[in-house]
Amino acid sequence: MANNAPSNNFFADNEDLRWYVDRGVDWAPLVEATEYGFRAPDAMKDVGEAVAFYREVLESVGELSAKYVGAKSSAMDREHPRVEGGAVVEGRAVTEAFEAFRGAELHRLVFPREFGGLNAPLLVYFLAGELIARGDVGAMTHFSFHAGIGMAMLAYSIYEGSTKFDVEGGRIESTRFQKQIEEICRGDAWGCMVITEPDAGSDMARLRTKAEQDRDGTWRISGQKIFITSGHAKYHLVIARTEPSSGDGPGAGLDGLSMFMVQAYEEREDGSVERFVTIDRVEDKLGHNSSVTAALTYDQTPAQLVGNRGDGFKYMLVLMNNARVGVSFEGIGIIEAALRMAREYAEGRRSMGKPIAQHEMIADYLDEMETDLLALRALAVASAYAEETAQKLGILSRFDATLSDHERARLADELPRARARSRRFTPLLKYATSEKAVEHARRCVQIHGGVGYTKEYGAEKLLRDAMVLPIYEGTSQIQSLMAMKDTLNGIVKDPAGFARKSAQCALRARAAQDPLERRVAKIQSLCRAAERSLVAKTAADKLGTVRHLPIGQWKSALSKKWDPKRDFAIAMLHAERLTKMLIDEAICEVLLEQSQRDPARRPILERYLERCEIRCETLLKEITTTGARILAMLAKKEHGDDGASTASSAPSPVSHAAE
Amino acid sequence: MANNAPSNNFFADNEDLRWYVDRGVDWAPLVEATEYGFRAPDAMKDVGEAVAFYREVLESVGELSAKYVGAKSSAMDREHPRVEGGAVVEGRAVTEAFEAFRGAELHRLVFPREFGGLNAPLLVYFLAGELIARGDVGAMTHFSFHAGIGMAMLAYSIYEGSTKFDVEGGRIESTRFQKQIEEICRGDAWGCMVITEPDAGSDMARLRTKAEQDRDGTWRISGQKIFITSGHAKYHLVIARTEPSSGDGPGAGLDGLSMFMVQAYEEREDGSVERFVTIDRVEDKLGHNSSVTAALTYDQTPAQLVGNRGDGFKYMLVLMNNARVGVSFEGIGIIEAALRMAREYAEGRRSMGKPIAQHEMIADYLDEMETDLLALRALAVASAYAEETAQKLGILSRFDATLSDHERARLADELPRARARSRRFTPLLKYATSEKAVEHARRCVQIHGGVGYTKEYGAEKLLRDAMVLPIYEGTSQIQSLMAMKDTLNGIVKDPAGFARKSAQCALRARAAQDPLERRVAKIQSLCRAAERSLVAKTAADKLGTVRHLPIGQWKSALSKKWDPKRDFAIAMLHAERLTKMLIDEAICEVLLEQSQRDPARRPILERYLERCEIRCETLLKEITTTGARILAMLAKKEHGDDGASTASSAPSPVSHAAE
Repeated sequence: MANNAPSNNFFADNEDLRWYVDRGVDWAPLVEATEYGFRAPDAMKDVGEAVAFYREVLESVGELSAKYVGAKSSAMDREHPRVEGGAVVEGRAVTEAFEAFRGAELHRLVFPREFGGLNAPLLVYFLAGELIARGDVGAMTHFSFHAGIGMAMLAYSIYEGSTKFDVEGGRIESTRFQKQIEEICRGDAWGCMVITEPDAGSDMARLRTKAEQDRDGTWRISGQKIFITSGHAKYHLVIARTEPSSGDGPGAGLDGLSMFMVQAYEEREDGSVERFVTIDRVEDKLGHNSSVTAALTYDQTPAQLVGNRGDGFKYMLVLMNNARVGVSFEGIGIIEAALRMAREYAEGRRSMGKPIAQHEMIADYLDEMETDLLALRALAVASAYAEETAQKLGILSRFDATLSDHERARLADELPRARARSRRFTPLLKYATSEKAVEHARRCVQIHGGVGYTKEYGAEKLLRDAMVLPIYEGTSQIQSLMAMKDTLNGIVKDPAGFARKSAQCALRARAAQDPLERRVAKIQSLCRAAERSLVAKTAADKLGTVRHLPIGQWKSALSKKWDPKRDFAIAMLHAERLTKMLIDEAICEVLLEQSQRDPARRPILERYLERCEIRCETLLKEITTTGARILAMLAKKEHGDDGASTASSAPSPVSHAAE
Repeated sequence: MANNAPSNNFFADNEDLRWYVDRGVDWAPLVEATEYGFRAPDAMKDVGEAVAFYREVLESVGELSAKYVGAKSSAMDREHPRVEGGAVVEGRAVTEAFEAFRGAELHRLVFPREFGGLNAPLLVYFLAGELIARGDVGAMTHFSFHAGIGMAMLAYSIYEGSTKFDVEGGRIESTRFQKQIEEICRGDAWGCMVITEPDAGSDMARLRTKAEQDRDGTWRISGQKIFITSGHAKYHLVIARTEPSSGDGPGAGLDGLSMFMVQAYEEREDGSVERFVTIDRVEDKLGHNSSVTAALTYDQTPAQLVGNRGDGFKYMLVLMNNARVGVSFEGIGIIEAALRMAREYAEGRRSMGKPIAQHEMIADYLDEMETDLLALRALAVASAYAEETAQKLGILSRFDATLSDHERARLADELPRARARSRRFTPLLKYATSEKAVEHARRCVQIHGGVGYTKEYGAEKLLRDAMVLPIYEGTSQIQSLMAMKDTLNGIVKDPAGFARKSAQCALRARAAQDPLERRVAKIQSLCRAAERSLVAKTAADKLGTVRHLPIGQWKSALSKKWDPKRDFAIAMLHAERLTKMLIDEAICEVLLEQSQRDPARRPILERYLERCEIRCETLLKEITTTGARILAMLAKKEHGDDGASTASSAPSPVSHAAE
């Protein structure tokens, strides 16, 4: 039985996804931002026309995904890509799917019309990605490295100032990498993001690949890179070192990194191909086989500097949220597939006189899978919406001379809110979708019993594919550290604001009229309690008595001596537990917003609360009462060291991850 | 880097395992039972000689496992077995490992000396199994299907009365399957246990493979069987249907099953092989590739009836605990390998200025892996010890005429206690080791980051291998249902005893002198509270008001109307949560026993308590406050059905699983 074989349209059969298009998304502001306030002559004429088009796109992707991806996922898993004559040869099923995508003009989806694009919102692109991921997550990954890198080139060019806006015409006039973007838009090329090296994963300060200018000023890159997704691309965005590491302080090593654009090969007129980057191998992985993971060697490879020297890390961060939201929709696609596969099997398989779907434990599993799926999609759509609003309003601000009062108000109000929301939600979303994809894929195998362990049914493939999600685009551990640091630093910068927010939660938990709002406020209060405990314990280590002061008086004491890059041990130990609480909080908030907009969504929030209330209480208890033994053990080890490294001289992971 | 390559002896490098041999196991009673009270002329002369021999055996297995299994685990994973000319061809690494095992006489380990065995305790055999599993769990599985099935034949023969005891000589004189046992003992054959069919997994009542007697009285089996581990065996113990299903009542379908011994093939003198069972295929699985999982067809295959017609299910149960304890040691082997692999990588990999093993979150992961490993091994050794004591004292009772007063006292006192303990611990152990093996193998992959996802390092192989454990030999769900049913039925049968036990726990939780004993008693009290809640809710459904009566008065009310096979929905829903609590309780009890024997073990119990106290409180809260919505949904579905099945007519899974 092939994965999802019975469905012939992954959008049409998905009630929850259709709800977003029909009711769940507040399209008007997003369409307005996407169409630069309907400025351009070829813009959509109104929101209705735009949404009708998005729905059509999703219906078409739903059909293609079912036919070319879902029905072929087993072949995509079996047909490993391989290196032949210096190039990567992909499997037949992947090749055919991408021919179909190209034929349906899917690669044009999100690009501005100026460059041949269809100017669909990123949100539509992400939802399309979910549909592909439900069929095969590796195919979705490769798909995203088409538009994703093209859009990165455009964003970088805007960022460095090499994109010209036609302010009167309401369009982009030209951009530095226009030729490459148009090529990608046609589906004739794709890109990749080249960061990781054998000795440098999450810790980018350890990157060693070098870029140097030769006599005529051309930059040339030399070094080895590994784990490069879609690394058989024509266009590489490469991070390389242009200056030596600047000592031992926080951020050391990151400031010497620069961003480059590399063309990896050139098709000559005689049909031959000249290569400037060597593909050393394609990794043999646990799963995710339809996605190429390459090891590359650069040897005096010509490159174009993007932005300024030393700004590489900053440029990497520009699109980080975007990439992580993309991975999150991959996770949701896997959970959707796992739930459907598990439910179908459980409804068909009889045991002890009834379908196993009606055995209490299995029913509980399926219910939790569905609740998580709906909850995570809600958070994902909210995150994508915030990130896109932030990006689009940022572009809209370029049209400054022509902005209406309404638009100016949006920029002043919504832009910072959208940025803050995206920054807050993204690591939570990436963590939650990745971890839950693994958990529920595993559950799908277990519900299948023996047949789940064989290759025949496709359940085990889902698990193998899911396992990459908590690792790439920033591990789950890195996401936790980012979420924790952002949250606690916010408190330290504004303890009075934190105290006020805590009091508001506590009040709403008692006084809100809607019982669901009260329950959500209770979750928020538990989060504040966890944060308060972590800040107080960290501060106590530094300051002794601060935790006995009222929180409003912490500011002056903390702002001088607080250094989140040091002595943050207790918060680092509990970062993952805090993250789990913050995820439950964010999901509850988003589901409450949905419930207020459409009462039909209330049962989803109720179901989610039922499971997360006890979980948050437990996590709070763990955060506030455990961990001392581990920290004591680590402190002892550190001091037992040969003295070469101590707690205070070693920069902490969190300092880099969320800079 | 190969799995565990640096070690050249898996026993010598394992401090915890050596502690069991040196101090942790109370060898004297076990040796005495194993040596039939030192009756036989060739028995060990004393406990010291016996234990020295066991240690030697484990050192030798430790060396063989490191050399022929651990160092070859990657080859064992790659070289899939295949069917060729009707037979299974195994990979080279597996073949070589089993030649080495045979050469070292490992297959003789547990058999009585009378049949060429070395008469080592089962416990030693299980510990040896753990050593093999640490190298490759599939190799351990296949290893266990040598002695395991030989010992099953002996046990069945004793059970049916076809084994003769030489009571004066203190030995077994003869046994029905002696020829086969001696062949297995030499390593010239192995066996398999043949139960599962395409439409019958956990629900054995659905088995359809038939056995019929032909005119000359020979039994002949016809039908298809799947998922048969080591199914390329020479000797098959097969469950087949000899009578039609006896209606719809509880246990329907199970009473028509009988146990058979089948010889699957015969080597002719000319070297050719005559086959009586067809190997249809070897499954292509997620992992566990060194173990053959076969689909078999029996077509009028001659068979010998074991025991009486209709006793098949009963015979299957005889060795069920044994098999499940064996699988548990497989899980422990995997956790041992995962911990070592993860720790080695984390100590070598530097990030942010220090080895990642010293990052707080990773340190916490490694600490929990080690704590679980030590805790699970403690429970496994206790379970194996109890099961073996029960079996060996059962055999000792055959020497009735020669028993000393001391022996009679042991039989009266220890035998029922050992049986009860084995019955209580086994499903908990199987559940815990399987689930934790998956969890910690996954964690090992995650700690490796990107390289964990590639096939190079072996981390992903551990996860693939581990995934079979919660499925075979009774799924985790079945283990939960068994544990729940046994526990709650015990309460219903003796509510006054339960009330007494609860009061004792509560008292010890306050008054015990040792603080660790108090904390363990607190865990026990939480378990009693969960059980009380489940029984009361179930009883309330039946009896309305019983839960408002003092528990001591429940008996008369319950004993009439209580039917655990019906209306058990709330307990079935929470079976897994209750099981997790009972696991923590059992582990705490065993670690407390160890701490009282050797104070050096106290820190392990402290570490375990630190993590399990909050967990048990959480589980209790989930059990007592959630689940109503799922049950209401199921009830609605059941009534919305076409009326063909209702809650009361459908036998519940628990009724069969733990009969």
